[in-house]
Amino acid sequence: MNGCFFSFEGPEGAGKTTMISKLESLLRERGIDVVATREPGGVRIAEAIRSIILNRDYTEMDGRTEALLYAAARRQHLLEKIVPALEAGCVVLCDRFVDSSLAYQGFARGLGIEEVWKINEFAIDGYMPSLTIYFDIDPQIGLERIRRNRSREVNRLDLETLSFHEKVREGYRELARRFADRIVVIDANRPLDDVFAETTAAVLSRLKGR
Amino acid sequence: MNGCFFSFEGPEGAGKTTMISKLESLLRERGIDVVATREPGGVRIAEAIRSIILNRDYTEMDGRTEALLYAAARRQHLLEKIVPALEAGCVVLCDRFVDSSLAYQGFARGLGIEEVWKINEFAIDGYMPSLTIYFDIDPQIGLERIRRNRSREVNRLDLETLSFHEKVREGYRELARRFADRIVVIDANRPLDDVFAETTAAVLSRLKGR
Repeated sequence: MNGCFFSFEGPEGAGKTTMISKLESLLRERGIDVVATREPGGVRIAEAIRSIILNRDYTEMDGRTEALLYAAARRQHLLEKIVPALEAGCVVLCDRFVDSSLAYQGFARGLGIEEVWKINEFAIDGYMPSLTIYFDIDPQIGLERIRRNRSREVNRLDLETLSFHEKVREGYRELARRFADRIVVIDANRPLDDVFAETTAAVLSRLKGR
Repeated sequence: MNGCFFSFEGPEGAGKTTMISKLESLLRERGIDVVATREPGGVRIAEAIRSIILNRDYTEMDGRTEALLYAAARRQHLLEKIVPALEAGCVVLCDRFVDSSLAYQGFARGLGIEEVWKINEFAIDGYMPSLTIYFDIDPQIGLERIRRNRSREVNRLDLETLSFHEKVREGYRELARRFADRIVVIDANRPLDDVFAETTAAVLSRLKGR
């Protein structure tokens, strides 16, 4: 396994997509083979699972069901997209991975970080990002950015309250404390250029260390 | 929780459906409130998950993805159907429960009984059958019974080889040894009446012990 696996975390509206896209171009310009992906990543089984998770009609969905479905979609996406890219020696930039489940279902929905970790441990079977960038942002700013972006359809998770998104942030911060070696926290309330400079520095320094 | 939870296990063709239906009538005649169900049990989220699992086109589905999807469907069916019935004091007869995942994915697919138990432990969150009836049958006899029953559509799992079904049986037998207090093994190679008499005796004796 010659590749390098990076994940990017944070709420919707934190700028993950923009950062990953800019980083992908920058690495490519430097001659590095890059695969940028996000769950469910065009993998048809993962897409099918995702469409159940995000169906706005399914208001009766239990938190544990949701966590298991995310883990299932993650597994299939990992196997079909991330593992082959790593085996081909690519740098993989993944928009969301296990920490999303730990922060959203484990912490914010109160299922417990350890509990949700158990099912994700089963799903990932040893594959973990060597570095995770967490974009920390005030939930109110993040939610406003989503609302302004009308091109994106509102899904079941967007309907959650502000206090839920505040808990998600608390969850991510708890994870950053627990996994300080893996997770780098970047303040995403600042101008995009500053956020990008810090993201690039963190990723390049990890790539040098390979 | 005043109800009593029974699960029924074994391969397709072992006669589970017939036995449950006869047992349901017998208990009802005795004035006992019974709910007979099977995953996904008409619960719409569980049905949607099931349709992904059994889709014959999804030959690329990984064993861990499959196990997580079964656990997700199980969770939703448990919460929406089994728990309310138990809370209402009913006897619940459930066609397949966790042992199916332990035997099929844990043992036969080689994921490990303990590993698959971990994700199911998360899914069931403490709810376990007080008694499980395992219908033990020669896989060849079971498969022939399925083939004769043309009213049922062939699904992805039916396409597995005979040796897979033999491993499933070995898995069930291993579970029966490990959980001897909970699992009763009934020889389902015999005439239906004999199988039914033994099933009824096991269930009634557990109901008396309540």
